[in-house]
Amino acid sequence: MITLDKIRDAKNVLKSIIRETDMIYAQNIMDNSNIYLKTENLQVTGSFKVRGASYKIANLPEEEKSKGVIACSAGNHAQGVALASQKSGIKATIFIPATAPISKVEATKKFGAEIKLIDGVYDDAYKTAIEYQKETNGTFVHPFDDVDVIAGQGTIGLEIIEQLPDVEAVIVPIGGGGLIAGVAFAIKQLKPSCKVYGVQSQGAGSMYQSFINKKVLELPTVNTFADGTAVKRPGDLTFELCQKYVDDIITVTDDEIASAILALMEKQKIVAEGAGALSVAAAMFNKLPIKGKKTVCVVSGGNIDVNIISRVINRGLLNSGRLCHLTIELLDKPGQLRDVSGIIAEHGANVIRVRHNQGGSNTDINDCFLKISLETRNQEHFEQIQNALIAKGYKITSNVQ
Amino acid sequence: MITLDKIRDAKNVLKSIIRETDMIYAQNIMDNSNIYLKTENLQVTGSFKVRGASYKIANLPEEEKSKGVIACSAGNHAQGVALASQKSGIKATIFIPATAPISKVEATKKFGAEIKLIDGVYDDAYKTAIEYQKETNGTFVHPFDDVDVIAGQGTIGLEIIEQLPDVEAVIVPIGGGGLIAGVAFAIKQLKPSCKVYGVQSQGAGSMYQSFINKKVLELPTVNTFADGTAVKRPGDLTFELCQKYVDDIITVTDDEIASAILALMEKQKIVAEGAGALSVAAAMFNKLPIKGKKTVCVVSGGNIDVNIISRVINRGLLNSGRLCHLTIELLDKPGQLRDVSGIIAEHGANVIRVRHNQGGSNTDINDCFLKISLETRNQEHFEQIQNALIAKGYKITSNVQ
Repeated sequence: MITLDKIRDAKNVLKSIIRETDMIYAQNIMDNSNIYLKTENLQVTGSFKVRGASYKIANLPEEEKSKGVIACSAGNHAQGVALASQKSGIKATIFIPATAPISKVEATKKFGAEIKLIDGVYDDAYKTAIEYQKETNGTFVHPFDDVDVIAGQGTIGLEIIEQLPDVEAVIVPIGGGGLIAGVAFAIKQLKPSCKVYGVQSQGAGSMYQSFINKKVLELPTVNTFADGTAVKRPGDLTFELCQKYVDDIITVTDDEIASAILALMEKQKIVAEGAGALSVAAAMFNKLPIKGKKTVCVVSGGNIDVNIISRVINRGLLNSGRLCHLTIELLDKPGQLRDVSGIIAEHGANVIRVRHNQGGSNTDINDCFLKISLETRNQEHFEQIQNALIAKGYKITSNVQ
Repeated sequence: MITLDKIRDAKNVLKSIIRETDMIYAQNIMDNSNIYLKTENLQVTGSFKVRGASYKIANLPEEEKSKGVIACSAGNHAQGVALASQKSGIKATIFIPATAPISKVEATKKFGAEIKLIDGVYDDAYKTAIEYQKETNGTFVHPFDDVDVIAGQGTIGLEIIEQLPDVEAVIVPIGGGGLIAGVAFAIKQLKPSCKVYGVQSQGAGSMYQSFINKKVLELPTVNTFADGTAVKRPGDLTFELCQKYVDDIITVTDDEIASAILALMEKQKIVAEGAGALSVAAAMFNKLPIKGKKTVCVVSGGNIDVNIISRVINRGLLNSGRLCHLTIELLDKPGQLRDVSGIIAEHGANVIRVRHNQGGSNTDINDCFLKISLETRNQEHFEQIQNALIAKGYKITSNVQ
């Protein structure tokens, strides 16, 4: 059973393994807000998962420890279990689907775990892990539905209250529910007046659905950019704790998540993964009644593939009207490029890229297309530029790409 | 004159304006190292500059304050002066060259400063700022060569000693020298045994050149990716303090800076700008005798344009052999794409992009080109794949793009 004493014990045990991550006042992230970031993306493995895994492992009897631990994950749980095992000097065997990004495999290997790359998807790796567990009698470390794991994650709740005693609301990302179960329990014990809200991705709302239907539901499929939260069925224990201690759960879209990642990177100079940015997305897009309230967004992790960061930046800039693509039909006569550039410059936008193409099959053979990418201030600024071009007789055939 | 008391006074004055930024043990950034990051990129304006500007403004007599302050900058100094003025309730007029990125102008405006966008480059904006100063009699806040500004930056030295009393070396980025002058002075007063090293970008080594030639030199041109350090001539006062208190100054290349930015983002989940990553680049590329020494890298700022982040990621991945482009000549017969994909898959690389083109003008008309972008582990891994393809008879016409 989870108790405040257990979470306090976890805090003590974790002292030598984890960092007490910084609480940063996010004054730049949105206007007129009172948002603080609990930066678990700056945790030693780049995510909170090492807390739960370390406490779970620390509590194993010596005999169990000698048989080693087993986990199945392509992400943060893998690294958490690997580091926790390394610190405890026990063997960890981690099953990873072969489709996982190389960077995640390498990061897990670095913490000294034995890696088994399994052909197929997560379910295949999980099946093999369970078979291996039966053979070796090692301990399978569940990523969320385990009381010790939940107690470990709950230490974040203790730190929040210590770092910001007058906190009024806490927003927590949800995958399987281990993080929010621990945090909500701790917060409500110490400060029942503080609201605790959960956020899921719209494409993977298994806890959200279970919460509003008041029973554990399994989704047939999950599809989200916040890959760390792609869980089809929440835990039984985590669901029960959410029902008791969480005030509300809402969802955000992938586009909202991308905008939050971009804002965290640009305004607060920290890297969050999709799952980690859920809480900030909920605040930025006014999904919760936190106006004027001193609110902590738990940024749960930062392990995002660098190749994806570029795509997120582009998507976030496009969504907010700060990166725009225009296709303009030109008559093939001199001076038109100069005129168009002039109109854009007058409006204070920066040209990033220009392509000048012969027309396609459904246009006049004399026509040319000018494709221009622009850096603009916002959607309104972009519209002003389009209107100015139209007023001068230019035909805009596309304003996206 | 700079004194330790002055820096201590600055610390006191700054308390209500700045954050005491976190000191993060960078266990993931390089193997077998003992590197800590002083994260000034997580400072309220995204850079240390607000410290010096705030202390300078706090020390102005009331009469001077009423006339307002003036600064010329497209970057961190602009935001620092703007926020410092806002906090002190005085007027700031900031001259910015019109070529500056929109994001920097917007960020400065947000802190309530009046912005004057001046056509041309920095020198034009500077000239106009000086004229304006003569008209208004306001105080021109120098970005580095000012004893109050230096004392403000020196507060970072005090924090380093408090946060990590057994520090053995500190590495500091240099532009005009204000940051290192203050930090080196503070560190050497409190702990003379601690080494203080400076880093400049190879393309903007004005303090480096001055330091080794033992006199202030002005460079004819500067060209660096670390735009925050593009200073042609170091300050007289900052140079004098560097001569007295800095143990050595070295330079790094733009490619080394890009790799450091990528490592900070990927391994430590923080965003650094070029100037901010200089210190980490010096450590990563073994430019300084810090092996085994407890070393603090001052990450001075994080205000990098998001459009540039994508380019940095690509460059960093290419440099480290983790992103590779191959052009393979194929005979135009069935099954070749399958064979090539098979060889790549066997070696555990991920295919990111494939393009299949008709041959160019200098090839056989029957030939095709296959352009493949790969995610690989490192340079060696990439070479193994190339060798395997060659062994199967494929002709690689290019391995860069």
